[in-house]
Amino acid sequence: MIISILGHGVVGKGVWDMLQNRSEFTVRNVLVKKGEKTASFMVESFDEVLGDDSELVIECMGGVDPAFKFTSECLKAGKSLITSNKALVAAHGIELMELARERNLSFLFSAACGGAIPILQNLHLARQSDSILWAGGILNGTTNYILDSMDRRNLSFEEALGQAKALGYAEADPTADLSGMDTMRKIMLISMVAYDVLPNSDYNLEGIQNVSACDFEVAKELGYTIRLLGRCGLAASGRLYSYVQPMLCPLSDIFAGVRLNTNLAQYQGQNSGLMGFSGQGAGRYPTASAILRDVWSVLGGQKQMLEKKCLVGFACNDAAECARSYFVRIDDEGLEKLSGKVGVQRIVRKDNGKTFAITDKVTIKVMHDAISELRSKGHVVFFAEMKEEA
Amino acid sequence: MIISILGHGVVGKGVWDMLQNRSEFTVRNVLVKKGEKTASFMVESFDEVLGDDSELVIECMGGVDPAFKFTSECLKAGKSLITSNKALVAAHGIELMELARERNLSFLFSAACGGAIPILQNLHLARQSDSILWAGGILNGTTNYILDSMDRRNLSFEEALGQAKALGYAEADPTADLSGMDTMRKIMLISMVAYDVLPNSDYNLEGIQNVSACDFEVAKELGYTIRLLGRCGLAASGRLYSYVQPMLCPLSDIFAGVRLNTNLAQYQGQNSGLMGFSGQGAGRYPTASAILRDVWSVLGGQKQMLEKKCLVGFACNDAAECARSYFVRIDDEGLEKLSGKVGVQRIVRKDNGKTFAITDKVTIKVMHDAISELRSKGHVVFFAEMKEEA
Repeated sequence: MIISILGHGVVGKGVWDMLQNRSEFTVRNVLVKKGEKTASFMVESFDEVLGDDSELVIECMGGVDPAFKFTSECLKAGKSLITSNKALVAAHGIELMELARERNLSFLFSAACGGAIPILQNLHLARQSDSILWAGGILNGTTNYILDSMDRRNLSFEEALGQAKALGYAEADPTADLSGMDTMRKIMLISMVAYDVLPNSDYNLEGIQNVSACDFEVAKELGYTIRLLGRCGLAASGRLYSYVQPMLCPLSDIFAGVRLNTNLAQYQGQNSGLMGFSGQGAGRYPTASAILRDVWSVLGGQKQMLEKKCLVGFACNDAAECARSYFVRIDDEGLEKLSGKVGVQRIVRKDNGKTFAITDKVTIKVMHDAISELRSKGHVVFFAEMKEEA
Repeated sequence: MIISILGHGVVGKGVWDMLQNRSEFTVRNVLVKKGEKTASFMVESFDEVLGDDSELVIECMGGVDPAFKFTSECLKAGKSLITSNKALVAAHGIELMELARERNLSFLFSAACGGAIPILQNLHLARQSDSILWAGGILNGTTNYILDSMDRRNLSFEEALGQAKALGYAEADPTADLSGMDTMRKIMLISMVAYDVLPNSDYNLEGIQNVSACDFEVAKELGYTIRLLGRCGLAASGRLYSYVQPMLCPLSDIFAGVRLNTNLAQYQGQNSGLMGFSGQGAGRYPTASAILRDVWSVLGGQKQMLEKKCLVGFACNDAAECARSYFVRIDDEGLEKLSGKVGVQRIVRKDNGKTFAITDKVTIKVMHDAISELRSKGHVVFFAEMKEEA
């Protein structure tokens, strides 16, 4: 099979390395940035890839523009497509899938969700014979590294973020990771594969920007640690829910055992029960290994990861399945306002004007709406789902 | 696709249930035991299945005899085969694979290792593009339930075993589980798929029969719990190692978070890094869900899970990759004899004539051989690998 690669950065270079000395594959062209051509297999013009004899193009450029232009032109030119670009799939996955389907080409994107972890391909296979009740997990290594460092090494948020940057886990601008948007994009991809629905992206999205060392102190006293969770699922009504938010999980829980920058994706199958998939969610060779598995799947004849036409959908986070207790840190006046909307089950600690409390069960929508309103009035709040013991 | 099922017990009934109301499949015949025919789709004679028009036979009878006779006759008659029977695959998997390959039929056995957990299919795909350095994990739910109950609920071994039986997790004769043989059979299947080598089965096999409440007491003081681990891998020499033994793992380790009867399979890929797969390793619908995934894989054209001709191999457990420290409980005289062969790093506790110690690193072969010799001289020993922090 003749392959061309778009991009020669962290992931693209890893894919190129892994494709060497494999008799099944020939790499024809690798698109690099202007002025970065240092070898004969590199080209600086996309037209050279578009016009070459590759049957499969692997996109590892990142970003939506010009990745969408390039990948859609490749599909239109009759080339199958593999990508590791979650922003591209979250923004244009439906169009790319339709382009591929109309032409009977392959379009796979395993590496765009969970790095090395084969959650998307396993969901794709599982849903043919089982019902996926929900899916999600710890899907961002940067935030997990920060949270784990704050927990086990008692670092401040700023210290942990600094170390994550120094280790190359966090980008210069870590906003997409810290805000939870990176996790949300992965949830969007999971939802596409599990439910043929692409949920709206900014709904009930809470990252880790508001977590502080004092939250870990109190969480530890309760026997918990803090993780960032994303999840989507089907309510009994048949409607989709999806969200990203921090989670207090018991130290004995499998999520608490997810260390450093590891990811853990899960799904609950009606017949299979709870399934977990853990591994490296990022990095050159872990991500490239997921792309290579997709290359072999294309060679084996796989065309797509979506069952049918994917729809854009609005998540409905006020179903009974969305009821959770929450851990909250807030000032006393804020707590009083909150208790008008969300029952407070108990006060855990009062300290320097801050109150740490556990709420009654409320739906995700009610909680996020209540916190939004409090923040709009200037209150500083950290909140996290209380994970129940499995 | 027309399908017949051999067996209508725990797993067979689950498969039958899951195949109902699926337009892609028709179940032609279900083989039941003499005198157990209670519905028109059931037959009591294997010849009725052999002579029917099914393209695929799903074997859920268990045991080697007559399962091997029936499955090999089905393959010879041109029917593809899926089985959940680990004893059958460990004993005759190579012959069944050759029968299928000669006839271009499918032979898949995902459900025979790890129940719902898709470790075999993921290894099969991963090894095409990555090198599997080792694979294994917690692969027996019965023993994990017993160990977790002893740890978290301070039960004795007998109490925990009794509860496992009452819950249906342990069979009336639990020898295969407790001895580690069930785990070893799963390691044999993993080795077939990952390395095309079926290792000998009774080599360096230590179960949980010798664990006692006092071992958990001491382990807890050290910050550890106890699990049963199986693993196979490639030494730098290219030779295979494989073993089953108890393991002390830190409370913060992901293995310590594997609760109740859950399984956690792992593999270390040269490029992917450490990958984990957790879920229900047994039970009607979890096991049936793995069989159904295989049914869809057959429908998608998959023929086999082995790359090439599988060889029978002898595990070599004295390689550098097999060096471990061990936790040992032994009488004082035994400890003195042991220390002639295995260095003692430190004594953890002395109590009523029993000594709890940590050894220097020795290879698996050296440790198992030393313990065998001590036991042959009447010494009572519990020993467990000290898992290093990941």
